[in-house]
Amino acid sequence: MAFGYNGKILVVDLTAGTHEIREHDERWYRTYFGGSGFIGEMLLKEDLVDVDPLGPENTMIFACSVVTGAPISGFNRYTVGAKSPLTGGFARTEAAGFFGPEMKFAGFDAVIIKGAAEKPVYLWINDGNVEIRDAADLWGLDNWDTLVKLQELTGEKRVRVSSIGPAGEKMIPYACLQNDLEHYNGRTGMGAVMGSKNLKAIAIRGTGKLEFADPEKVKEIASWHRKRIKEHPPNVGLHKYGTPILTEGVNAGGFLPTRNFKEGQFEHADKLFAEPYHDTIFHSRGTCWSCSVACKRKLELDDPKYPLDKRFGGSEFEAVAALGSMCAVDSLPAIGYGTQLCNLLGLDVVSTGSVISFAMECYENGIITDEDTGGRPLKFGDADAMIWLIRQIAAKEGIGEVLSLGVKKAAEKIGKGAEKYSFHIKGQELAFHDGRGKTGMGLGFALCPTGADHIETPHDVAFVGEGISKLYPMGLLDPVDPVKTDAAKVRFFYIGQKAWGINNLLGLCNFCSVPIHALTFTKLVEAVQAITGWETSLYEILNGVERANVMARVFNNRCGFTPDDDTLIRRWFEKMPSGPLKGMRFEPDEFRGWIELYYEMSGWDKEGRPTRGKLIELGLDWLEEAQVGAAQ
Amino acid sequence: MAFGYNGKILVVDLTAGTHEIREHDERWYRTYFGGSGFIGEMLLKEDLVDVDPLGPENTMIFACSVVTGAPISGFNRYTVGAKSPLTGGFARTEAAGFFGPEMKFAGFDAVIIKGAAEKPVYLWINDGNVEIRDAADLWGLDNWDTLVKLQELTGEKRVRVSSIGPAGEKMIPYACLQNDLEHYNGRTGMGAVMGSKNLKAIAIRGTGKLEFADPEKVKEIASWHRKRIKEHPPNVGLHKYGTPILTEGVNAGGFLPTRNFKEGQFEHADKLFAEPYHDTIFHSRGTCWSCSVACKRKLELDDPKYPLDKRFGGSEFEAVAALGSMCAVDSLPAIGYGTQLCNLLGLDVVSTGSVISFAMECYENGIITDEDTGGRPLKFGDADAMIWLIRQIAAKEGIGEVLSLGVKKAAEKIGKGAEKYSFHIKGQELAFHDGRGKTGMGLGFALCPTGADHIETPHDVAFVGEGISKLYPMGLLDPVDPVKTDAAKVRFFYIGQKAWGINNLLGLCNFCSVPIHALTFTKLVEAVQAITGWETSLYEILNGVERANVMARVFNNRCGFTPDDDTLIRRWFEKMPSGPLKGMRFEPDEFRGWIELYYEMSGWDKEGRPTRGKLIELGLDWLEEAQVGAAQ
Repeated sequence: MAFGYNGKILVVDLTAGTHEIREHDERWYRTYFGGSGFIGEMLLKEDLVDVDPLGPENTMIFACSVVTGAPISGFNRYTVGAKSPLTGGFARTEAAGFFGPEMKFAGFDAVIIKGAAEKPVYLWINDGNVEIRDAADLWGLDNWDTLVKLQELTGEKRVRVSSIGPAGEKMIPYACLQNDLEHYNGRTGMGAVMGSKNLKAIAIRGTGKLEFADPEKVKEIASWHRKRIKEHPPNVGLHKYGTPILTEGVNAGGFLPTRNFKEGQFEHADKLFAEPYHDTIFHSRGTCWSCSVACKRKLELDDPKYPLDKRFGGSEFEAVAALGSMCAVDSLPAIGYGTQLCNLLGLDVVSTGSVISFAMECYENGIITDEDTGGRPLKFGDADAMIWLIRQIAAKEGIGEVLSLGVKKAAEKIGKGAEKYSFHIKGQELAFHDGRGKTGMGLGFALCPTGADHIETPHDVAFVGEGISKLYPMGLLDPVDPVKTDAAKVRFFYIGQKAWGINNLLGLCNFCSVPIHALTFTKLVEAVQAITGWETSLYEILNGVERANVMARVFNNRCGFTPDDDTLIRRWFEKMPSGPLKGMRFEPDEFRGWIELYYEMSGWDKEGRPTRGKLIELGLDWLEEAQVGAAQ
Repeated sequence: MAFGYNGKILVVDLTAGTHEIREHDERWYRTYFGGSGFIGEMLLKEDLVDVDPLGPENTMIFACSVVTGAPISGFNRYTVGAKSPLTGGFARTEAAGFFGPEMKFAGFDAVIIKGAAEKPVYLWINDGNVEIRDAADLWGLDNWDTLVKLQELTGEKRVRVSSIGPAGEKMIPYACLQNDLEHYNGRTGMGAVMGSKNLKAIAIRGTGKLEFADPEKVKEIASWHRKRIKEHPPNVGLHKYGTPILTEGVNAGGFLPTRNFKEGQFEHADKLFAEPYHDTIFHSRGTCWSCSVACKRKLELDDPKYPLDKRFGGSEFEAVAALGSMCAVDSLPAIGYGTQLCNLLGLDVVSTGSVISFAMECYENGIITDEDTGGRPLKFGDADAMIWLIRQIAAKEGIGEVLSLGVKKAAEKIGKGAEKYSFHIKGQELAFHDGRGKTGMGLGFALCPTGADHIETPHDVAFVGEGISKLYPMGLLDPVDPVKTDAAKVRFFYIGQKAWGINNLLGLCNFCSVPIHALTFTKLVEAVQAITGWETSLYEILNGVERANVMARVFNNRCGFTPDDDTLIRRWFEKMPSGPLKGMRFEPDEFRGWIELYYEMSGWDKEGRPTRGKLIELGLDWLEEAQVGAAQ
């Protein structure tokens, strides 16, 4: 008897129009756990190295974990993975909400999508009944209309939907997935992959119940956790203000990316802080399955130009930076409206903001001209230009067509030195934390298998002084200096990456879980034990994290990534021009040394390839044969 | 406020006749924990690489841990370390009983002995009062008389004593320490080091109380543990029969070293099994601090030739093999009497049995002759010869003089091809488990920093079939084949060594703790948390284990050990001649490959040197500079 998980994975073949159920035993679940582990296993076992990310041979997975759907705050995320059209490598993108738990309640721990339908379809999973249905009536709709229509088509008001908008249909490589219009699998272009499969949406209704090994203990932990969330300062702040609470501190520290990473402070940042956000555009809180943090925002504003509608999830910190400081826009209504547009149309707001600020900097440097824009100026600070570009990109119209490629390919196509302003890592645009002010996160941006990802990586600033005690259970005892990069910082990142990796493996929300938020390592382990009935440990879970990380690395290596791809953006190797971090930069040769030190800590060779010993240690012997050229 | 430990280490300088108290902070305790960790730190920080093990520059440590003395079964061991006179490298030897907890109650977590006294002394630690006292009246006494005399001299009937016998005084490199005549720090020659310092004994009386962070929880775990010990089959067996319960199974499996490792079964083994032991020589059970297993035996026999006295600890399995099957002696009274003699005189029974069987094989092959023995034949099976040799060795008389060097140096001195019968690893005689029948333990014998040590290493036979579930919390999910050596076995050893390492780090008894006995990994972590108040984890503890292991490795490397020392005895590379394992052997080139795979898993280079990355990962940066020639 399995507890916590169903033991079943739904595999849908859109080409054949068939589906089957794949069953795995406890050993498999205890090896791969969920999320990032399921993705790595699939990418390598299905051997997706050489496939076109937007061809029918690419395979997607919607992965819960062995604990998703337990009634504990934050145990609600699911992860989507495939080969990424944005990076050409490992893709992984999480979202919260209710979709993951609903999948579990419907009887599946993951859904794998293979092949491509000839015509638009959607997948209807109704408590174990699986149908591939015609989506002619949905194709072309935005995410809101898709949701409403699917409620009609399935006859289920409470249906949970993951869908793509027009951006995904058009296979824009940074198109995202949404669920319930509040939750987004934003990064690595999974919307484009879904679009390439002619799959508009997955609709799920699940009324089953998960069995837990020790239901009383699960309840007890959930209640302990809820109580602690009410008292734990970072969670109190998140409840009150949501992630926009970060804007003020990030700006004060001088690491709020501004004007396409040119600066680390935005002169009008105070207009974007949590309090004005709360006082002007905020309508109410939203939340996720069983979560008492309720950090999600809903916005409402009766504004002729930027009307805000409470049906949509409001701007997170990343959106405030993407459409605000990055574009030098200081209007919260415009930022809220831009976020809403991205959500409706299905664009990742992080990449979109980066693309727009890239376009603005190109425009200000004469690389993109009025001729390219049809006479529309694209200056930093122009909120209307920002909104206009979102629409152009989603529609692939005018300048939007080239910008829809993402900054890397857009710069290549534009030429004229545009690369100088094209900031990405491994092809993916960066999340908005200047690495010069959080050097551990800088290392994380360089080393994350998906390109710069802020939920892969430790936020150095939370571990200064006594703050380091959060990582004591992982054996890290020395406080962090946020702006220093040295061997101790590499160690901090090495260990912190594993701590964050727990959340990506088990599908836990960073804002409820370890290491910063209300869940402790001890309670986490107790929760996994009570849910699954396994006598597991932090050691075993972190082993799973490392296994997932190594699988992602091996996949990327096979896809052709080299140590040269483990790098940062040009601007971070140059001195910060102003603000509290003025003069700070990463020294390139030294930085290379830290990357190599990380490889060595990880049991990878100088080319960043996990050694045979590391693969065997992690029980990944099945990868050994094919690990071409690795150290022997 | 520290819980569980005192924060104080007593440092005695016998040359100067002074002592001081060294205080360490929580960070230090959380880095080194105790036992093997304290030893490694001391050997490297004091830089004992180039010292003569029997010179005054060598330094000894008697190390408890942060949890020693908690009232939980098995939380009672302490570890003695120094540079070993037997191996010339890292020494570590544990003993149970009451001495370690008494040290904690007296206010110290460890006692370090530096220098050497001019004349015999003993150390009297009375609740924090420390005296170096004249031991003229003790020198030359056996361990029993020493104990009685010390009770008189200190006026404390309940004094706890660790002492050396005449063998230690004579600096026999496999002389041991005893406490309470039932518990022995047997291996690596710590009795000789103590003798070289003219230190006859350490007497301790401690009436203090340890404070625990959560005393109720400590009680709760202790009581849960006691209950489980009563039901958990391996503990039930140990309670009933003690370690001699192993003899039958080890012989049946064909891996009971017999006649100096020539065979794996002893034709008269049935006379040595637990039941005849219990029915003939057994008197009563002994136990250790707060332990409900009570696996210790006391013997009594009214026999004119081999009188057995219940004041002494009786023969453990290792003694039965050492003086029984290894010497082909089938008389339990003789074995019991030989054990008693070793205990009185202060000889490690494991090395002593090996030395005697080496002498017997040399004698049978004409390498040791009647001329050497003064006409005394030394044939296998001759119980009187075995007893006679123990006395000769302890007195360094006649043939005993050369044999007192240990098999390695004795063979060198004897010449005439004696090396052919000299079985040791890194200079230390082996414990009695034929590695061909437990290949994981074989790897452990080769890789243990002290030379072959059976408490370093996983007992493969406990992990066949469902048995492997004991190691699930460490991520090991596949059952073990005891006689197979392959990559999976190297992984099993790599992980299992860490599991056993917990006990050597924290001073827990293997017979109460993980992975085989009644304590579970979960309860272990809870216990450490409740005792210390640290939010620790299995990950952090295993990090400490690896740190200790790496320090031992670095010390040995600096002392001149090379990968050639990570090997097995000649006979195990040859086919087992008979019994269930007939034909089994380690293939030398293949074995070398497994050793190198272990290095790679460990983050060590091909020369067996921990890489810079590994040192930094473990927070051992302070070793980096001096790690000459290591991989960069």
